[in-house]
Amino acid sequence: MIVILKQNPEEKQLGNLMAWLESQNITIHTSTGEMHTILGLVGDTSHLDIDLLRALDIVEDVKRVQEPYKNANRKFHEDDTVISVSNTTIGGDIFSVIAGPCSIESEEQICQVAQAVKDAGATMLRGGAFKPRTSPYAFQGLRGEGLNLLLKAKKLTGLPVVTEIMDLSQLNLFDEVDVIQVGARNMQNFELLKELGRTGKPILLKRGLASTLQELLMSAEYIMAGGNEKVILCERGIRTFETATRNTLDLSAVPMLKKLSHLPVVIDPSHATGISWMVKPMALAAAAVGADGLMIEVHNDPKHALCDGAQSLTPEAFADVMQSVNAILPHAYKAGKGV
Amino acid sequence: MIVILKQNPEEKQLGNLMAWLESQNITIHTSTGEMHTILGLVGDTSHLDIDLLRALDIVEDVKRVQEPYKNANRKFHEDDTVISVSNTTIGGDIFSVIAGPCSIESEEQICQVAQAVKDAGATMLRGGAFKPRTSPYAFQGLRGEGLNLLLKAKKLTGLPVVTEIMDLSQLNLFDEVDVIQVGARNMQNFELLKELGRTGKPILLKRGLASTLQELLMSAEYIMAGGNEKVILCERGIRTFETATRNTLDLSAVPMLKKLSHLPVVIDPSHATGISWMVKPMALAAAAVGADGLMIEVHNDPKHALCDGAQSLTPEAFADVMQSVNAILPHAYKAGKGV
Amino acid sequence: MIVILKQNPEEKQLGNLMAWLESQNITIHTSTGEMHTILGLVGDTSHLDIDLLRALDIVEDVKRVQEPYKNANRKFHEDDTVISVSNTTIGGDIFSVIAGPCSIESEEQICQVAQAVKDAGATMLRGGAFKPRTSPYAFQGLRGEGLNLLLKAKKLTGLPVVTEIMDLSQLNLFDEVDVIQVGARNMQNFELLKELGRTGKPILLKRGLASTLQELLMSAEYIMAGGNEKVILCERGIRTFETATRNTLDLSAVPMLKKLSHLPVVIDPSHATGISWMVKPMALAAAAVGADGLMIEVHNDPKHALCDGAQSLTPEAFADVMQSVNAILPHAYKAGKGV
Amino acid sequence: MIVILKQNPEEKQLGNLMAWLESQNITIHTSTGEMHTILGLVGDTSHLDIDLLRALDIVEDVKRVQEPYKNANRKFHEDDTVISVSNTTIGGDIFSVIAGPCSIESEEQICQVAQAVKDAGATMLRGGAFKPRTSPYAFQGLRGEGLNLLLKAKKLTGLPVVTEIMDLSQLNLFDEVDVIQVGARNMQNFELLKELGRTGKPILLKRGLASTLQELLMSAEYIMAGGNEKVILCERGIRTFETATRNTLDLSAVPMLKKLSHLPVVIDPSHATGISWMVKPMALAAAAVGADGLMIEVHNDPKHALCDGAQSLTPEAFADVMQSVNAILPHAYKAGKGV
Repeated sequence: MIVILKQNPEEKQLGNLMAWLESQNITIHTSTGEMHTILGLVGDTSHLDIDLLRALDIVEDVKRVQEPYKNANRKFHEDDTVISVSNTTIGGDIFSVIAGPCSIESEEQICQVAQAVKDAGATMLRGGAFKPRTSPYAFQGLRGEGLNLLLKAKKLTGLPVVTEIMDLSQLNLFDEVDVIQVGARNMQNFELLKELGRTGKPILLKRGLASTLQELLMSAEYIMAGGNEKVILCERGIRTFETATRNTLDLSAVPMLKKLSHLPVVIDPSHATGISWMVKPMALAAAAVGADGLMIEVHNDPKHALCDGAQSLTPEAFADVMQSVNAILPHAYKAGKGV
Repeated sequence: MIVILKQNPEEKQLGNLMAWLESQNITIHTSTGEMHTILGLVGDTSHLDIDLLRALDIVEDVKRVQEPYKNANRKFHEDDTVISVSNTTIGGDIFSVIAGPCSIESEEQICQVAQAVKDAGATMLRGGAFKPRTSPYAFQGLRGEGLNLLLKAKKLTGLPVVTEIMDLSQLNLFDEVDVIQVGARNMQNFELLKELGRTGKPILLKRGLASTLQELLMSAEYIMAGGNEKVILCERGIRTFETATRNTLDLSAVPMLKKLSHLPVVIDPSHATGISWMVKPMALAAAAVGADGLMIEVHNDPKHALCDGAQSLTPEAFADVMQSVNAILPHAYKAGKGV
Repeated sequence: MIVILKQNPEEKQLGNLMAWLESQNITIHTSTGEMHTILGLVGDTSHLDIDLLRALDIVEDVKRVQEPYKNANRKFHEDDTVISVSNTTIGGDIFSVIAGPCSIESEEQICQVAQAVKDAGATMLRGGAFKPRTSPYAFQGLRGEGLNLLLKAKKLTGLPVVTEIMDLSQLNLFDEVDVIQVGARNMQNFELLKELGRTGKPILLKRGLASTLQELLMSAEYIMAGGNEKVILCERGIRTFETATRNTLDLSAVPMLKKLSHLPVVIDPSHATGISWMVKPMALAAAAVGADGLMIEVHNDPKHALCDGAQSLTPEAFADVMQSVNAILPHAYKAGKGV
Repeated sequence: MIVILKQNPEEKQLGNLMAWLESQNITIHTSTGEMHTILGLVGDTSHLDIDLLRALDIVEDVKRVQEPYKNANRKFHEDDTVISVSNTTIGGDIFSVIAGPCSIESEEQICQVAQAVKDAGATMLRGGAFKPRTSPYAFQGLRGEGLNLLLKAKKLTGLPVVTEIMDLSQLNLFDEVDVIQVGARNMQNFELLKELGRTGKPILLKRGLASTLQELLMSAEYIMAGGNEKVILCERGIRTFETATRNTLDLSAVPMLKKLSHLPVVIDPSHATGISWMVKPMALAAAAVGADGLMIEVHNDPKHALCDGAQSLTPEAFADVMQSVNAILPHAYKAGKGV
C-alpha cells in the first residue's frame, strides 16, 4: 500500500501515523520528493482501512498495490480450479453448457426442454423457480413447486441442475439442487453470500449489472472466506449507455478474470443481449475467447414463454449453436497458468 | 402500448395476435404506413408481457405508453405524500435532515453524535448496525448490539431513528426502528421489498448504483403493492465513468422523481461523493433543487471511524452545513402538484 | 413516427398540429385510448424535427419508428458492401487485417514492421503520422514527414496504407493514402465528415468512446450523404465504469451493425483493451463473432515505442495471432443478408 | 510517479530501467516488500510515458502522483482566474449568465431574444451559427450569415457574444466574437485546441459527453500551453445509463474543478437535461453549488425553434429563472482559494 502525503505534512500527525502503522506490524519506506512524500507500506496491509487513511489531514491519496482478495487470487493458487458437479465438472477440460428455460412453467415444459438440451449436448440443466422481476405485477415463478418440477427433470435426464436462490429463507429447499445460482441483483447481498459460504454446494455467481471485476472477485471471496471454494463466475452483460442490446456483454472479462483468479468463468449470452438471434454469434465469441462454458436460455415454445421469451432459443436453434460452438472449441484461446 | 409490425406480416399470425389481444380486453387501432403497420393497443395493458410481444415473428418493436407503475405514479395521486415519522414528518413542509454515523461503534459514540446532530437541527438520527461491506475482511457492523445502542440514543434524544436492514431474517429486530432503510445494493432484493410491503413502517429506499429512475419507482411499487404506502426515495449517486468522485450525484433525479411520483425524495451527498469537504456544496445544491431532505454522515471522530470516515463530517462541520442549508431553503425550487 | 398526446389536449392546438402535419404530406391515423390519444404519422417523416414535436404543450412523447439513416441502412441495400482498396477488398470474402505501429517513428521502423506484418499475412498497413494525444506534452507524431515514411513502406511492400486524419487542413497530404481513418474523438466532427464525403476514398470510421451504434451509423450517413459510399465501421471499445481494461470492447456491435447496415465492420482489440496480452483472445473472439477484419498494433520494439507500447504486439506475437485467427475463421458466425 | 515491480524482477532489466530513469534526471527510492518492490520516482516525471513503463516485462503497474496538467492546476496558481470579456468579467464576483437561442434563425429572432435576455439580467448573448447536428439531414445553422446576425444583436444590445466554432477553417470569421465556444464533441479536437491557444480570445470549453474532469483539464491545458490562459470550463451533462434526462448533469464537477483548477466553471442546464421545465431547478442548484455562471437557451418562440426547442425557455420563463437564481446567489457555496 502506498500513502502519498500532502506537501509539508504536520510533523506530529506524521509521527502518530507512522507509530500507529508500525504497531500494526507494517514496515514503512519513505521517499521524499519535491512535491510529495510517499510512504511505501510493507507487510500484511489487507486489514488496513484505505478510507480511514485517506481521511487523514496529512494524506493526499492512498493506492493499493496488492489485490484485496486472497482465496480467489491466482497469485496464491496457480492452477485452475476444477469443480465437480454430479457426473460432470466445470473449469477443467469439459466445456460446460448450462441450458434450459428462464422460468419453469410446467412438468411437461421442463422435462421436454431438459431432454432436448441433453440430446443437443448440454452438460447441465437450468430453470428458474424463484424469479427476480422488475415489476411486482409480472410472473414471479412457480417457486417451491417449480423446484420440484426441476428435480423431476433432473431425475428423468440425469442432468445436474442449476437454479437461482433469491433469499436466505429459501435455502432449505435447495438440498437436491446441484449448483445454486446467485443472480446479478444479489451479487452484493452479503448475508446471502456468507451463508452460501457455509454450504458445500457449487455457487454460480453472476456479475452485477454495474459491478467491476474486482467487486465480483470480492463477492466470490465472501463465499470462499466461509470455506466454500466452489465458485463459478458468470459474466452476463453490464449496463452501459448503449441501448441497441439489453446490456453490453464484456467478453474481455474472460481472459482478465482468468488472469486474476483460478475460478472458472462462464458466459450468459442470452441475458446479456436479450435478443435470441444474437445468442449464436456471442456464444461463438465466448467459446473463442476462452470461457469455461455457456449459460443459454432454451424454451420449447419461446413465443409463449412466461418470461424472457425474446431471448430464448428453440431446441433446434440451440442444437445449431452447440454444433457451431463445438467447431470453434479446438481453436479457442487457452488461458490458465501461463496467462 | 404500441406494436410496430414488420413489413408484410404473415396474415394468419397477425390474425392470431389480434384475436388474442382482443381476448385480453384490448381494443386495437391499426395504422397502415408504407414501411410499417402500427397497432395502437387501448385498454389495461399493464398485464401484457412486452417481451413476449417483441418475440413474435411478425413484430418489429413494442413501445410502452403508460408508465408500468401505478401506486407510485403521480398521475393517480396528485398530492405530495407526507409521511409521519414519530414526532416529525417527511415529504411535507418540514425539510428532513437525517444525520449520524455510518456505523454505530459504541454507546458513547452514537449518543454523542445523536445529541450533537439534534442540537444542530437534524430531524432524525441515522446509524448503521448491519453494514454491507465490499470486503469480507472489513468491519461488518455491531449488528443486534448496534441496534440496541441506536435505540438508547433515540431514547436519550427523542430523535426518530433510521437504520439499514440487510436481510429478511433481521426484520424481527426492527420493531422500534422508525424508518427502515433499504440500501442501494438491495434496491432490487424483491423478496425483501415484498416483506417490507407487509409492515406498516416507513421505508427509505436508496437508488441502486446503476438503477434508472423507473426501476427505482418499480421497486417502490413492490413495497406499495403490498399495502405499505410509506416509501421515501433516496438518490445517493450513480456509477459512471468519472472517478474524481466515488459516484456521480444525479440531482436532476429530484425534480424528475417529483414529477413522476408523489413520494418524498431525499439526497445523500456523503455516499455520493465519498469526500467530506464536498458534502456542503452538494447539500446546498440538493436543498436548492427542491429535495425533501438530506441524509448526512456525521461522526464525532471521523479520522478514527471504523467505516467511511473519509466522507463523515464532524459535528461542527455539520452545524455549519445546517446553517447554510437553512439559508437556501426559503429560495429553493418548489416542485409538487404543479410541476 | 408516433405522437403520444397528453390527456385532453387543447382542441385548437391539436387542430393546428394536424393541419401542419398534413401540409408536410403526412397522413395521420388516430387511436384514442383511455389515458392517451396516439397519432400514427405515415409518410416520409425523416424531415420532421422530433424535438420540435416534443416541445408542444399537447404532446407527451414522440417515438420514431423508422431508423433516421438511409444510405447506411440494410433495409434499403440488402447486400453486403464490398470496398476495393488497392489490391485487396474489405467487406467481402477476404478477412482484412490492418496491422502496424501506433506511431510512425522512423523509416527503418515503419519499413521493418510493414515487411513483418505482410509476411505474417496482414492485408493492409497502418501507422499514425498525426497523433491525437490527451496531453499537449506527449509526442504528437511525425506529421507530414510521417506520411512520407508510410508511403515509402507502402512502396516497399505493396501493402495499402491506413492512417488517421485529425483536421481538414491535412487533407491535401492524403492523396496517396489508401484508407483515411477518422479517430474515435472525431466521429462527430461533422465538418470533417462532410468533406470526406466529397472524396472518393475509403474511410475507416471509428466508433466514439461514448457513441451509440445509431450515432455511429449517423456519422457514416454524413459521409455517404456526400456521395462517398466507402465507409468501414470500426468498434474499438466504449467507455464504461470498468477499469480493469482501458475500454470495454463491445463485440455485440458486430452482429448488430451487420444487421442494421450493409457496411463492413472491423475490430480494434489493441486500443480497446490497452494491454498487449489481451489482443490475442479478443482477436479470436472478433473473428468468431463475424467481424470483417481486425486492426492490430504491431511494433518491432514495443518497449521503446513512442506511444501506446503497452498494447503493441511484437511481429512474432502478431504472427501467432494471425495463425490462431486463421484457424477460427472457417468456423466463424456468418452474418449478412440473412441476418 | 510510483513503479510497482513484479515479483522477482529480472536483474539485468531492472538495472537497465534504473539507469535509464537516472539518465532522465529522476531520483529513485526503492521499497522492498514481501510481494512487490516499489520504486518511488522523484523529479520532473511529467515527460515520462506511463504506458511505456507499464509495458516493461518487470513492471506490474505504474501510478501517477502528480496531476499531468500544470497551467490549469490550482497548485501552481492559487487565485481564481478572472477573465475580462468586453464590458464584463467571468470567474470573479459577477455571476455570468450567457443566454440566447440554440440556433440563430433570423435578425428579428436574435435581436428580440438578445434584448429580452439583457432586460432580464443576462451578461452575455449566446447563439449558434455553426451547428453540430447528429443527422446530416437536420438544419446545420446559418453559418457565416448567422455570425453576422449575431454581431448585429451585439451592436444593438452591447452584450458580448459567445458562439461555437466547429472547424479551424472558420476561425477567420470569429474576429468580433467575444468568446469562442468549443462544443462537447470537439473537446478533444486537439488541432483546434492548439490553434485556439494561439488566439488571445476567451475560450468556453465544454466537457465531452464521456470525458473525465482530468481530461477536461488536459484539454484546457492544450489551449493554455499555447499561451492563452483565458479558458472557461463548462459542465453540460455526461452520458450515463439513465434515459429520463438527455444527459446527467454532474454538479459535483463544480466544487471538484474549482479545487483542482483556478479556471472559472459554468453550467449549461439546458443541454444537460434537454427539457425546458428542468432548467429552473438545475439552474438553482448550479447557483447554490458555487458555479461562476450559467449558459441557458432562450428562444422567443420555442415551439417553432429550428433546433432544440424542447429545452428552450421563453423570455418570460428565463426572467423568472433569473429572479430565483439571484435570490439563491447570496447564500451559495463559496469555493476558491480556501477549498
